[in-house]
Amino acid sequence: MTAPPPLDLGVLVSGTGSNLQAILDAVATGALSARVKIVISNRPGVPALERARAAGVPALCIPHQGFPNREAFDRALVAALREAEVSWVVLAGFMRLLTPEILDAYPGRIINIHPALLPSFPGLEAARQALEYGVKITGCTVHFVDRGVDSGKIIAQRAVAVEPRDVLATLSARIHRAEHELFVSVLRDIAAGQITPFSTEA
Amino acid sequence: MTAPPPLDLGVLVSGTGSNLQAILDAVATGALSARVKIVISNRPGVPALERARAAGVPALCIPHQGFPNREAFDRALVAALREAEVSWVVLAGFMRLLTPEILDAYPGRIINIHPALLPSFPGLEAARQALEYGVKITGCTVHFVDRGVDSGKIIAQRAVAVEPRDVLATLSARIHRAEHELFVSVLRDIAAGQITPFSTEA
Repeated sequence: MTAPPPLDLGVLVSGTGSNLQAILDAVATGALSARVKIVISNRPGVPALERARAAGVPALCIPHQGFPNREAFDRALVAALREAEVSWVVLAGFMRLLTPEILDAYPGRIINIHPALLPSFPGLEAARQALEYGVKITGCTVHFVDRGVDSGKIIAQRAVAVEPRDVLATLSARIHRAEHELFVSVLRDIAAGQITPFSTEA
Repeated sequence: MTAPPPLDLGVLVSGTGSNLQAILDAVATGALSARVKIVISNRPGVPALERARAAGVPALCIPHQGFPNREAFDRALVAALREAEVSWVVLAGFMRLLTPEILDAYPGRIINIHPALLPSFPGLEAARQALEYGVKITGCTVHFVDRGVDSGKIIAQRAVAVEPRDVLATLSARIHRAEHELFVSVLRDIAAGQITPFSTEA
């Protein structure tokens, strides 16, 4: 048995970055044996970039509007991720669909977290969708990323109860707490070699 | 406050009747304050009918093939349910879609149990669907019945973990146990007046 290679992460963000913060905190405390090598946002000035810098992690903004198409944008992402020598790519609230340009550059090594129990409520505003549908149990899902919207193979899920008095803010907060735990838990399993890159040739 | 009227149940079945058995057992032990007034199957010779007779409950088979259309079949169901003086109708593995003939006869008083966390995996073979999709959490749902396939307003849900070694039989057994508990729990709440008939005029 050889030890798995070090888990060198590139984290893609678009906004608040609370899942990024959970990862940074777990790395800082030693709970997660990994290094965040770079954080890339497609939007300028978002809190996620500040969180990265505060943790001493290189933070880069690559605005997607500056590219003629998704493929060109993804090639810029790949160039930055390769420069930072990351081994896995983590989507933490990254609001862009990925093309084969990046999917093929990190085959089976790109994961995302979604605030619902997929396949229920894919896409935007999953917590709002769940609340409006009236489910009594929702949750969060970590999955491998493919070309679809939240359609990749599921790695792990956690259930979250919808309480009778929940409004969007209270439910979202409860889901976020579950996300932070689940995301770090999955990354620990990847770092330990217990979760391996997804292969369609299984 | 007036006490809620007695919970007089008509149970519609198509097969094994394990959820029916859970209800009959809960009534027999006094855990559920209700009376099963009649059990109706659309298929002859199914175990569910035997379970009813063994519990001393009138058991009736109304084969759907004998009717020119769904509406005529549903009118026969309504006639039998009215004759038995039931106040709520429970679908326990009943494999027929309902028409307004019965929906309007028991408005907001027909419930179903489905072996998945709706809106994931509606329709047939929900446990198999969940296993093949690869979810890590599935469960069961009790919902009001409308004209759609498992599309009515959700009353209660329970999560069930999918274990790494699960095959269809082991997962189905775990979901069934959760179903039995959830179904009886919901019926207790209905008997206590804590769940009231669903109204679209809320």
